[in-house]
Amino acid sequence: MSAAHQALRTARHGGRELAITVLDRGTHTSYSACGIPYWMAGDVGSGEDLVARTAEEHREAGIDLRLGVEAVSVDLAARTVTTADGETLSYDDLVVATGAPAVMPDWALRADGTAYDGVGVVKTLDDGAAWIERFAAAGDGARVVVVGAGYVGVEVAETALERGFEVTVLTRGRGMSILEEEMSDRVNAGLVAAGVEVVLGAEVSGLDVVGDRVAGVHWDGGSRAADLVVVAIGVRPATGLLAGSGLEMAANGALRPDRHGRVAERVWSAGDCCEVRRRVDDAWVFRPLGTHAAKHGRALGDSLAGGDLAFDGMVDTAITRFAHGEVYLEIARTGLSRAEAEAAGHDPVALVTEGTTATGYMPEAEPIAIWVMADRTTRRLLGVQVVGGHGAGKRVDTAAAVLWAGGSVDDLAWMDLAYAPPFATTWEVLQVAARRVAERI
Amino acid sequence: MSAAHQALRTARHGGRELAITVLDRGTHTSYSACGIPYWMAGDVGSGEDLVARTAEEHREAGIDLRLGVEAVSVDLAARTVTTADGETLSYDDLVVATGAPAVMPDWALRADGTAYDGVGVVKTLDDGAAWIERFAAAGDGARVVVVGAGYVGVEVAETALERGFEVTVLTRGRGMSILEEEMSDRVNAGLVAAGVEVVLGAEVSGLDVVGDRVAGVHWDGGSRAADLVVVAIGVRPATGLLAGSGLEMAANGALRPDRHGRVAERVWSAGDCCEVRRRVDDAWVFRPLGTHAAKHGRALGDSLAGGDLAFDGMVDTAITRFAHGEVYLEIARTGLSRAEAEAAGHDPVALVTEGTTATGYMPEAEPIAIWVMADRTTRRLLGVQVVGGHGAGKRVDTAAAVLWAGGSVDDLAWMDLAYAPPFATTWEVLQVAARRVAERI
Repeated sequence: MSAAHQALRTARHGGRELAITVLDRGTHTSYSACGIPYWMAGDVGSGEDLVARTAEEHREAGIDLRLGVEAVSVDLAARTVTTADGETLSYDDLVVATGAPAVMPDWALRADGTAYDGVGVVKTLDDGAAWIERFAAAGDGARVVVVGAGYVGVEVAETALERGFEVTVLTRGRGMSILEEEMSDRVNAGLVAAGVEVVLGAEVSGLDVVGDRVAGVHWDGGSRAADLVVVAIGVRPATGLLAGSGLEMAANGALRPDRHGRVAERVWSAGDCCEVRRRVDDAWVFRPLGTHAAKHGRALGDSLAGGDLAFDGMVDTAITRFAHGEVYLEIARTGLSRAEAEAAGHDPVALVTEGTTATGYMPEAEPIAIWVMADRTTRRLLGVQVVGGHGAGKRVDTAAAVLWAGGSVDDLAWMDLAYAPPFATTWEVLQVAARRVAERI
Repeated sequence: MSAAHQALRTARHGGRELAITVLDRGTHTSYSACGIPYWMAGDVGSGEDLVARTAEEHREAGIDLRLGVEAVSVDLAARTVTTADGETLSYDDLVVATGAPAVMPDWALRADGTAYDGVGVVKTLDDGAAWIERFAAAGDGARVVVVGAGYVGVEVAETALERGFEVTVLTRGRGMSILEEEMSDRVNAGLVAAGVEVVLGAEVSGLDVVGDRVAGVHWDGGSRAADLVVVAIGVRPATGLLAGSGLEMAANGALRPDRHGRVAERVWSAGDCCEVRRRVDDAWVFRPLGTHAAKHGRALGDSLAGGDLAFDGMVDTAITRFAHGEVYLEIARTGLSRAEAEAAGHDPVALVTEGTTATGYMPEAEPIAIWVMADRTTRRLLGVQVVGGHGAGKRVDTAAAVLWAGGSVDDLAWMDLAYAPPFATTWEVLQVAARRVAERI
């Protein structure tokens, strides 16, 4: 929808006139998937609050929006799309913005392909509504097992704690794999301090089921009783309708559009069904995040209507939060991991630095840990990760700006960042962290 | 002291061996002047909390620190410093780090050169202690007049409100002159909403005095009764000891050291007694802030001991806060003002954009206003100012990083900043603000 609206905007400003038809197999448009855990927690009053633009608003803008219509195949040569109802639509330009549904593993599914009762993912508004019903029906102290410790897993763990449930998080690895181990350890410690049971290295192998309802989860080496199981193990691009099209795809089916969203002659794509270009190492990576989707969609829409806006990639920035009771952690990262840096041929130097978010004597001061990595030879900044209290997380934006410009660890250490006692230390902690790495090189 | 400690550090790592003598006319070292308003407000328990390093700690590090010793003149040819006691010390290298005492205008002074009772500045730990005594002695509802609406004026207004006093702020201009008018207006409105009387365009001409004690303040067009008067109209470099030395100085007496802190052969300087180089327009400006002092001092100390660390200037970043009752404003800026941009030959395009600090449906969302300015021809980012709720202020750091790299408004609009609902909107508000300016160009 970002692409559609930008195309209309560009058309109004002298661009190519377009008649836009949007097919969506779902029932809602333009909602914030990222907000669903907060809706489930009760921070957000209703699912409607998460809807940025209703179907009516899209239609009033001149978009022929058809909800409940699923595109099942595409003929690129004939320039037609066929729907599940057997209708065939022809097009001049095709935009594939099919997103990436949550992965539901076989162990969660009945013979008919639907999940056992009490088991679900957190992806669509309908998912959110289903969880709110399940939460309401579950008694006090119900046992919730969250499978996966990525953003969604950690956010849902918070949600379930806020709802008063007993929470276990199972992760096949060492926790948040978007962080280096010395940083993900801090997140694990925060989860545990807040009362979550965290089981690392637990790859789920199956469920215990009573009737149609989940009663437990087991993995190689353990099991837990469970009233509810949240599956949060990732998403997969919905590009099945392009099977056999000959378009270049990543191993997981993601498309690789250029900076204008172009995949092939008259075929465009953006959003969660695509990989994005990471500027730091010029690599294709699958990062199904709303920020990339919104920017790439906008560039696509403008380009489709004859403009030249471009999405010049990303630097792998992300943020989340885990908060319950006395525990409050902002968790953020940007740039490469150590393994990615090594794979790209760098000789990385990395250190964790501990400090405070405000000057130590102020009541606002909270602990913050910052991991900084730079290249030993070029001194180029390669990555920054943060775990800390209020005000910690968005500090990665400053590092992201340095990565965007290809700057050095010295740039980060010496640039002019804002200081006053409620906000920072005189040497901003991000700069102390960069300076320590600079001195180590 | 930053310079002294860095020089010793560099010497330990193979640099030039140095015997360091430090003369200071005061009684305290290495304290946070920025923290004094928060100490006065009661946020900070004691003045000692503001001391980063005590005299003993400096001496243990090997520095010959002589407190209560005032250097009054320098003979650059003979390489000697003379103290107020008539002692003459010879040196190989001279470091001038005399800072910038607060300006006390003639109308505040008795015939003997001391201020009337109830009148003072906010600069040293002794000033802070004096204010704490005056506040304690003042009855409930005492009337405090703050002269000046810069950082210190606004912070002390908050302090006095927190202490339960009636507060009037007088400013000869339109309020915080570090902001454009459309932004300083928002600060003025916040002060008023919190119960401060703000009088714009009021240049104080004199005091009403009863005995030795202030009883009121008057200006061309008005007057107010006052039990206490805080003078916060700025600071002036303490470079009188170099009078007649022939060293280049700004009109206000500030020195202009190079990136290593060198002013002349064997003469060095850094900190509040200096101007600093602003990278955005390559201009010398007087910005007596702790961040610049700490960085420049460190570069100086390293260079003095044979290293090559350099302070490569600043981009005019600053931040403060005004908070009382329901009013909470983070106030920050970086880069040029419109007038400075025009003086530097730019054709500036600037807009204010309003948004929220978090996604609108989250309880964390608070209003934020962002002013962005860019050059019409080169699209280069020139300045960003922010007034808003929790999390607003440090957003200028991201803009400061773009300014540091000489990036464009498009870089700011399209770079990869962190998004999750508690922290930002999908299009981060700073990027929406930049995009609007980009579209306007």
